[in-house]
Amino acid sequence: MSTNVLLVECSDCPGLVYGITGVLFRRGLNIVGNQEFVDTGAERFFMRTEFVGATDAGGLLAEVRAVLPADAVVRLSDLAPKRIVILASREHHCLADLLVRQEFGVLNARLLAVAANHAALGPLVEECRPDFIVLAKFMRVLSPDFVRRFPSRIINIHHSFLPAFAGAKPYHQAFQRGVKVIGATAHFVTDQLDEGPIIVQQVIPVDHTHTPEDLSQAGHDVEQIVLARALKLVFEDRVLLCGNRTVIFD
Amino acid sequence: MSTNVLLVECSDCPGLVYGITGVLFRRGLNIVGNQEFVDTGAERFFMRTEFVGATDAGGLLAEVRAVLPADAVVRLSDLAPKRIVILASREHHCLADLLVRQEFGVLNARLLAVAANHAALGPLVEECRPDFIVLAKFMRVLSPDFVRRFPSRIINIHHSFLPAFAGAKPYHQAFQRGVKVIGATAHFVTDQLDEGPIIVQQVIPVDHTHTPEDLSQAGHDVEQIVLARALKLVFEDRVLLCGNRTVIFD
Amino acid sequence: MSTNVLLVECSDCPGLVYGITGVLFRRGLNIVGNQEFVDTGAERFFMRTEFVGATDAGGLLAEVRAVLPADAVVRLSDLAPKRIVILASREHHCLADLLVRQEFGVLNARLLAVAANHAALGPLVEECRPDFIVLAKFMRVLSPDFVRRFPSRIINIHHSFLPAFAGAKPYHQAFQRGVKVIGATAHFVTDQLDEGPIIVQQVIPVDHTHTPEDLSQAGHDVEQIVLARALKLVFEDRVLLCGNRTVIFD
Amino acid sequence: MSTNVLLVECSDCPGLVYGITGVLFRRGLNIVGNQEFVDTGAERFFMRTEFVGATDAGGLLAEVRAVLPADAVVRLSDLAPKRIVILASREHHCLADLLVRQEFGVLNARLLAVAANHAALGPLVEECRPDFIVLAKFMRVLSPDFVRRFPSRIINIHHSFLPAFAGAKPYHQAFQRGVKVIGATAHFVTDQLDEGPIIVQQVIPVDHTHTPEDLSQAGHDVEQIVLARALKLVFEDRVLLCGNRTVIFD
Repeated sequence: MSTNVLLVECSDCPGLVYGITGVLFRRGLNIVGNQEFVDTGAERFFMRTEFVGATDAGGLLAEVRAVLPADAVVRLSDLAPKRIVILASREHHCLADLLVRQEFGVLNARLLAVAANHAALGPLVEECRPDFIVLAKFMRVLSPDFVRRFPSRIINIHHSFLPAFAGAKPYHQAFQRGVKVIGATAHFVTDQLDEGPIIVQQVIPVDHTHTPEDLSQAGHDVEQIVLARALKLVFEDRVLLCGNRTVIFD
Repeated sequence: MSTNVLLVECSDCPGLVYGITGVLFRRGLNIVGNQEFVDTGAERFFMRTEFVGATDAGGLLAEVRAVLPADAVVRLSDLAPKRIVILASREHHCLADLLVRQEFGVLNARLLAVAANHAALGPLVEECRPDFIVLAKFMRVLSPDFVRRFPSRIINIHHSFLPAFAGAKPYHQAFQRGVKVIGATAHFVTDQLDEGPIIVQQVIPVDHTHTPEDLSQAGHDVEQIVLARALKLVFEDRVLLCGNRTVIFD
Repeated sequence: MSTNVLLVECSDCPGLVYGITGVLFRRGLNIVGNQEFVDTGAERFFMRTEFVGATDAGGLLAEVRAVLPADAVVRLSDLAPKRIVILASREHHCLADLLVRQEFGVLNARLLAVAANHAALGPLVEECRPDFIVLAKFMRVLSPDFVRRFPSRIINIHHSFLPAFAGAKPYHQAFQRGVKVIGATAHFVTDQLDEGPIIVQQVIPVDHTHTPEDLSQAGHDVEQIVLARALKLVFEDRVLLCGNRTVIFD
Repeated sequence: MSTNVLLVECSDCPGLVYGITGVLFRRGLNIVGNQEFVDTGAERFFMRTEFVGATDAGGLLAEVRAVLPADAVVRLSDLAPKRIVILASREHHCLADLLVRQEFGVLNARLLAVAANHAALGPLVEECRPDFIVLAKFMRVLSPDFVRRFPSRIINIHHSFLPAFAGAKPYHQAFQRGVKVIGATAHFVTDQLDEGPIIVQQVIPVDHTHTPEDLSQAGHDVEQIVLARALKLVFEDRVLLCGNRTVIFD
């Protein structure tokens, strides 16, 4: 029996879990995992339901929408490997890590293309029709128009915590400041540079013996881990958006 | 409006979430957080539902039980401070930490008694009627009869990972072994010594410069953190049992 | 036999370790731990030597200085408990943690005073003659003159990583940004607000379920740990300064 | 100017640092990093000295030995890439990670061979004359004779903390026990299976949603990190042995 995931986001009101699970129950679908969250400040409801059983997707979605407020966003995923394009430029550590994971089949992705050439990017990606574009240390600026064409579907790994050490040569900045931890941030890309919703952040400790080069190597290590973790969450349909914040059903 | 928590555990079958949330919906209670887990191996269903709204507890429980299998265990909590007794003996670091947290009101507990005297324990605890008994480095053996009277209601902090370095002088054993991490385990007490369900485990790094005394101090630090974390989870009704394992709705 | 610590900082040149250890050897002092670091960029030499044996401090210091460059800073410590004053204002969690540690004798300090009253601070501290002033969430601004009187002797715990979320209501800022980790920074105070040398930084993970209040509680927990760790390092004479960076011989 | 590392281990007595650094000083060699440790229980002295300058190795070693006790073990390393053989069998995640690191030049190793064939191992390794043999999930038992031929030169990654969950199917054991952390241990191989000196240990958190397969994947991730970290330390000549414990000059 295949596993499917239903993702719901809408304004909060009573009866939502009851309504949604009622649709699944009447269709004979068995829930094996259910997570729900209400952002009380934003009055938004989020739910991720994993269920098993054969179903007609169109009919299920229509019935679920019928029990929800008009602003509801509903998605159904069969957890099939995501179609992805990876962009990388000068630094290859994240790219290599992703290729190894892909080789071992733990990335839950179908890799359509790896691109470094900036000029040819638009047509390539258009042709590939990827679910997600992964910026694996792609140190070039994407045009606002390009970003707008893939809302919440471009994932970047950033060489630091956000907000911290914006701008060039972050590890030299970190060295000068004498930091004791180095971190990385995986986030969705929006038209606000480095300001998109954060998916994963993590740190590793460093000390005074670390040169800027050592900090950079430590940064590479944590970047790999953070990007891989973020992709796993996104590709398993565990990440929803609440404004500029992520809701992660881990 | 007060917040309540409904905790359900039963054998798994279709329609459980639908049935439970239906009862809440018909009573006009609004769900603000819902977590559900199915242990597919054990075929057990677990759910924790946080909701707001006034309700008659007896009626609600009866209605929920009516939509569940016969083996269901259902609890309703108003998240009131838990009634607790703390037992400690020679080492006081965990006790001190808990007293400070209690003073700052972050423990969600009502502290009935702190006891060290082994002989008087039975009558004292009987009189206090605690929800939970916290062994904050109580280095004495409780009688099997005593343990059986408080099933899943005695919480212990253990001076190591489990299973590891059983027996006396664990930090000397750890020193001899040259370990690079020191951990602690908070767990429920069963009649199998140190074998009860684990609630929280955590480590801190150590190195060759640590003497057995330094390891012991590092152990104390992590014990405090792990015990406080475990109590927070238990006292917020976030911990359910699946055989000898815990399900934690964090 | 008492343990002493010799701390040396000077411009780098050949023969420094040889020269210093020669003085100790000729005086019959036995080295039990020695750490040395050269900041090759700054061309500065740092050394911390732990030794046992009775010695006349003045004579030892004079002999050590005689084998070092003219710019050398040399200190001798008998690791006696440091004389400290703790300043706290509205939030008491760090203060409480330090008082418990002091009670258990693990802080290696002699606590002269705890002060909250801003006006009386100058005369009090003058009278106490503390080795260090600990700002345990002292949310008031110290005058530049006051800070200058205690160079590298005032230690602050900051409610975030530095640089990050400067200004008021950091946890609300962190919540809005949707961060996935909360950190804290212990640093020396200079006349540049929040810009002094960093001693310890650490983080704990948070997620979308954390309200600003939860983030604040998480922040409190990590602040306590980071401040206690920084004080342990400083009070054991393990922290040297290299410009705005710390060298930590842990 | 090339960097060299001098490693010394001997019984403790006064004047050792002075004696060793005197040799370096008279030869005009400049110390850029020096770490020293005395295991007071074992009365053993350990030192790692990084220095720059051209030197004749044989002469230097002879002079250093002349100022040390008769039981001294002295090594000189030019930090050249270590000659290594990697052994792997069914699971390839650690092997793949090491190959990527080797490709990026961050492993400080010269990879002579990767072997999986048990039968041909002896002759192959004899011919290769490796500095180190890395067991990257080599799930077969090496003969005691083979192990004795490479004392402190075989490094293994173990699928758990040591001591913990010895024997087969460790992740199923860990699942049954309901652990909340999964760890890994890199250690030198001795003729006592899994009992050799520990180099690195680390953990990652897990929870009740992890199946044995998920625990295994988490274990793989931490195994890679721990093995790579251990190799970095060993290949940079930062690891010394004190009986069954390691001294790590990080």
